[in-house]
Amino acid sequence: METLVTRSRLDRLTASLSNSNLDAVILNPGPTLKYLTGLNFHLMERPVVLFVAPGRDPVLVLPELELPKVDLFPFKIQGVAYGENPAEWDDAFTKAVRSLGLDAKRIGVEPRQLRLLEFRHVRAGAPEADFPDATDVLAELRLRKDKAEVDSMRRAVKIAQDALESTLPRIKTGMTEREVASELVMQLLKHGSESEMPFAPIVSAGPNSANPHASPSERKLQVGDLLVVDWGAAYDGYISDLTRTFAVGEVDEEFKKIHKIVQEANAAGRAAAKPGVLCADVDKAARDVIENAGYGKYFTHRTGHGIGMEGHEAPYIRGDNMQILEPGMAFTVEPGIYLTNRNGVRIEDNMVITGNGAESLSDIPREIRVVG
Amino acid sequence: METLVTRSRLDRLTASLSNSNLDAVILNPGPTLKYLTGLNFHLMERPVVLFVAPGRDPVLVLPELELPKVDLFPFKIQGVAYGENPAEWDDAFTKAVRSLGLDAKRIGVEPRQLRLLEFRHVRAGAPEADFPDATDVLAELRLRKDKAEVDSMRRAVKIAQDALESTLPRIKTGMTEREVASELVMQLLKHGSESEMPFAPIVSAGPNSANPHASPSERKLQVGDLLVVDWGAAYDGYISDLTRTFAVGEVDEEFKKIHKIVQEANAAGRAAAKPGVLCADVDKAARDVIENAGYGKYFTHRTGHGIGMEGHEAPYIRGDNMQILEPGMAFTVEPGIYLTNRNGVRIEDNMVITGNGAESLSDIPREIRVVG
Repeated sequence: METLVTRSRLDRLTASLSNSNLDAVILNPGPTLKYLTGLNFHLMERPVVLFVAPGRDPVLVLPELELPKVDLFPFKIQGVAYGENPAEWDDAFTKAVRSLGLDAKRIGVEPRQLRLLEFRHVRAGAPEADFPDATDVLAELRLRKDKAEVDSMRRAVKIAQDALESTLPRIKTGMTEREVASELVMQLLKHGSESEMPFAPIVSAGPNSANPHASPSERKLQVGDLLVVDWGAAYDGYISDLTRTFAVGEVDEEFKKIHKIVQEANAAGRAAAKPGVLCADVDKAARDVIENAGYGKYFTHRTGHGIGMEGHEAPYIRGDNMQILEPGMAFTVEPGIYLTNRNGVRIEDNMVITGNGAESLSDIPREIRVVG
Repeated sequence: METLVTRSRLDRLTASLSNSNLDAVILNPGPTLKYLTGLNFHLMERPVVLFVAPGRDPVLVLPELELPKVDLFPFKIQGVAYGENPAEWDDAFTKAVRSLGLDAKRIGVEPRQLRLLEFRHVRAGAPEADFPDATDVLAELRLRKDKAEVDSMRRAVKIAQDALESTLPRIKTGMTEREVASELVMQLLKHGSESEMPFAPIVSAGPNSANPHASPSERKLQVGDLLVVDWGAAYDGYISDLTRTFAVGEVDEEFKKIHKIVQEANAAGRAAAKPGVLCADVDKAARDVIENAGYGKYFTHRTGHGIGMEGHEAPYIRGDNMQILEPGMAFTVEPGIYLTNRNGVRIEDNMVITGNGAESLSDIPREIRVVG
């Protein structure tokens, strides 16, 4: 079942533009465009940009061969199409800018999503415009998940958990990290994840597990390794993003100890999450456990990030983030300890703030389990 | 087996910079960065940028928690790390710019890859610099595939072909496009594709097949549909990108006719490919077949694009591209006919120019086959 994209999301955006110092925003393919319109484009060498300005129908600049998608749009949109020759593309952008009267205006952008490709074409059409950062205005739209969104996330968590449980019995000493990752992705698909994964799973063992952002390698699992699996599924455009850490056979006592500390930090972070609390408070609750155990300097990243259509969105669970948690906000709690060149541990859950507390969408066992 | 990334690729870049009007290039995570360095980062909300200037060690600005990756780098690189607070990030970029003396210089960029996020941080560190488009300089580096690269692409084609053959008997009338796509992705993984797919397969049937860039939907396969499958695998960082079109049960005579025309156009495009020929000539060879059959206006896109680490790179097989094909260049030949709101056909192969001709890496049957 598809989440119904209605005009109301665009109306919320244009209302918030009217209350901001922005005259418009531009969006290229990505989660915000999909959230507002349901339009699902890939980022390619041909620029696709939606212009949204209050009181006007949105204007979409796109390649001719993508024009059929405009017909699927659930409400009125003006398509401005261009052909295969890049020399003509600036003209299409100029036409879009003029039709909305946006030259010399303030056109908000999403710097994390917009490429120089799209930006330079828009600027060619609007050489006098300013392009302030609209990240906060746009993030605000998606910040509080409604029931349908939480239901999709819950389903994405269930798919991920079921897929991991199907993968665990297949993990054997001597398999490479990549082999484990492939098996896990197959299980994610078999259990119903969309084929466009939210991110490639991290499967990292031994020294690699001490790198929080490792890519699966050809290294083989060895007895004594810690094994970090950071994985997620996608369901109806919403994602899950979980991490559990396993022992390959018998592991060093210190590794069991750091696992226990991280598990307590994860529990403390989850327990701290409720309406009215600062993001910084959740970070502190988890971080204090690790610092008090003497491993503070080995917890090298923030405690979590927002989650919904992306793995990285607001609210960020960081020590300097004074944002107040409110019902519907969704984020990860994922403390870790990384002993460089030795082993690492991370335990990650997906939380949603409720009316009077918080719910962990994920409940797969957090204690250290032995595989291999 | 990993393709060995050696200093020679970076040396080729700095040599070509010395012969250009560029003082440096900047790269964010993506194929070019991976090609030059082997470094595999994800695009996230934290900027990662490599600065390459002739005669100097490369400088990589990156988050502290990614620093372990610098140690894996096969040759000397200077890491400039920043912490979790975005307010401090500009300082790291300023430090990188100054260490290379790049303020007020000409710093080449890849607009299709670089986001405003990275660009604005670099510009904050180099407010007097120019940022010319370095796409051509960088594309040139990757344009002629060596034997190891072609071998990886050949393997990616074989995985894709085997996966499709395993999927075809499972396709049944009444399945949704998404179900077929999921099954195909599972088979791709089972046959050895990297878990990070080059792109999500297009599985589009009936009216959806008339949209060249459709996403798999909940629409069920019906007797009489044409079924377009556009899929690929990844092996050792290199990809395949193929398309075949099938008949779901018995289909209209006109659909069989357009399939035959596209098959002839595909053969003509492949036959035209050899050293010394223009990209435009290959496009014309395929396009003439479709135009002569009276369907020219329904072939709404170029004939192909380069292929290697990406699905979209040089050389582009377009009617206005006067680039001369040379041994080692690799690209798709993928003519199509799209009857809007009815049905579409596309047939795509992956070609490599050889010493005296061209080789199609793909050889899975091109004639219309019946599924369902």
